[in-house]
Amino acid sequence: MTVSASLPVVGLVGLGAMGKGVAANLLRKGYRVIGFDVNPDALAWLKSQGGEVGQSLQADASRVQVLVSFVVNDVQTEEVLFGGQGAVGALAAGSLVITCSTMPPAYVEALGKRLQAHQLALVDAPVTGGKVGAEAGTLTIMVGAAPEHAERARPVLETFGKRVFVLGDRPGMGSQMKVINQLLCGVHLAAAGEALGLARRSGLPLDTSLDILLSGAGSSWMLGDRGPRMVSQSWDDVTSAVDIFVKDLGLVVDAAKAQTYPAPIANAAYLRFLATTAKGQGKLDDSAVMRSYTDLYPE
Amino acid sequence: MTVSASLPVVGLVGLGAMGKGVAANLLRKGYRVIGFDVNPDALAWLKSQGGEVGQSLQADASRVQVLVSFVVNDVQTEEVLFGGQGAVGALAAGSLVITCSTMPPAYVEALGKRLQAHQLALVDAPVTGGKVGAEAGTLTIMVGAAPEHAERARPVLETFGKRVFVLGDRPGMGSQMKVINQLLCGVHLAAAGEALGLARRSGLPLDTSLDILLSGAGSSWMLGDRGPRMVSQSWDDVTSAVDIFVKDLGLVVDAAKAQTYPAPIANAAYLRFLATTAKGQGKLDDSAVMRSYTDLYPE
Repeated sequence: MTVSASLPVVGLVGLGAMGKGVAANLLRKGYRVIGFDVNPDALAWLKSQGGEVGQSLQADASRVQVLVSFVVNDVQTEEVLFGGQGAVGALAAGSLVITCSTMPPAYVEALGKRLQAHQLALVDAPVTGGKVGAEAGTLTIMVGAAPEHAERARPVLETFGKRVFVLGDRPGMGSQMKVINQLLCGVHLAAAGEALGLARRSGLPLDTSLDILLSGAGSSWMLGDRGPRMVSQSWDDVTSAVDIFVKDLGLVVDAAKAQTYPAPIANAAYLRFLATTAKGQGKLDDSAVMRSYTDLYPE
Repeated sequence: MTVSASLPVVGLVGLGAMGKGVAANLLRKGYRVIGFDVNPDALAWLKSQGGEVGQSLQADASRVQVLVSFVVNDVQTEEVLFGGQGAVGALAAGSLVITCSTMPPAYVEALGKRLQAHQLALVDAPVTGGKVGAEAGTLTIMVGAAPEHAERARPVLETFGKRVFVLGDRPGMGSQMKVINQLLCGVHLAAAGEALGLARRSGLPLDTSLDILLSGAGSSWMLGDRGPRMVSQSWDDVTSAVDIFVKDLGLVVDAAKAQTYPAPIANAAYLRFLATTAKGQGKLDDSAVMRSYTDLYPE
């Protein structure tokens, strides 16, 4: 892979499953990538791919023009930017910060203003498409940013995103779209549990029930993906945990409240995941939300 | 079309959009069909297709071996079977009654026992696939019946159903499956309204929002079908009315209660349709359930 001197140097924070795929795509397109992560194995992997290992954001952020963050949430984002070893202060004025984490829209909107005070531009850019999309460079990216910042970020985003949508002219708008996407994901998943749980309670054959539900107007992407795990009750094979939806639907509920918007269906779904976690099942596969219904009854 | 003497004579009650498609398929497969409907135009149509016009169920039910009912609900079913001009009493002992309407599972289960007392066999056989499926003979049929009755009904059902599933050995099991299908349809539709309503409330572009939601894990059949109408706000082009889901989710809520099963998501969705109808919008297209959210705010 040849590094191009005409492209901005990218700092990439968070080399988890998503971040690794993004790093590989950036390197493949000729970007110089300096990676930051607490996990030394992830940094060694980056080096083997032709990337550079950053010592700390405070020490190395001055060497990048664009900082891309794929950390888990707002708490980690805060640490990355404003923590003791954080990037703010080290980043040169005019640098671009791109946050791809799923975070509260209100936090992201405020973050944009805080970074502006440091002459830094924030591009709010959460993604969907998972690890597979990150590796293939086919993520869908939901951007909220001033137009000039969105356009500066676009070439970088297009290295790992197939569809880059600009939803609005300020940070927070991308995160709001992401939250709405999670609303439907969470509701459809909990509803699948409610429907298949009722089928089981009614003595209907679960596999045939799922087959029928998937064949018609009641189908959803979530039912097709998680339904088979509900039928086989294989909660221990974890693709994504119940706790993730406690977090994501928690964001949905809060974001709706911030807009003075009643979201009764999202709230009802949220409570199913919370009830599942409350029983100590939060680390199970999220299809275990069905157990918030079926565990009510004696075996 | 040649009528086969070896096939049972079929009485068909309810020649609406669904019933007409079913009649056409029965006639095409060589069945002798005697039709019953309050609408003389529907009866004239049946005659033009090679069917026969029944005068009344009381007068003509003795001429059929299988009675298929495509009426609207349990109230009409009760009238068809036990009303002043009803079929019970006229139908010969051993005749088969096939009910294809969407009805309360508990009603259908009790109906099976009531008909048994008259030496009549009930096959509970609600369908999905709509008018298009009825015409094409591609309906999905959810059967609850004693095995020997289900097998007697199968050749008749297969004239208009592509997939005939036997869900259980007693009437009511098919209706329970249908109710669960309606649970997901109704929840997904109301959730689409909740999500797109929040997008609008947040100042996000609705068409792009729908595009993003449909591209990923938040997609559903209902979002794809009704979402575009929510974006264009074309509530007057009615494919299926809000009131239909007030009825169907009402059945869901009652059926869940009958199983001592909490269905909080279905209940939340039900209340959105009820709120829409309460505002005088019950005759609008069911995508208008979005207005139970967006009408909350000043224009």
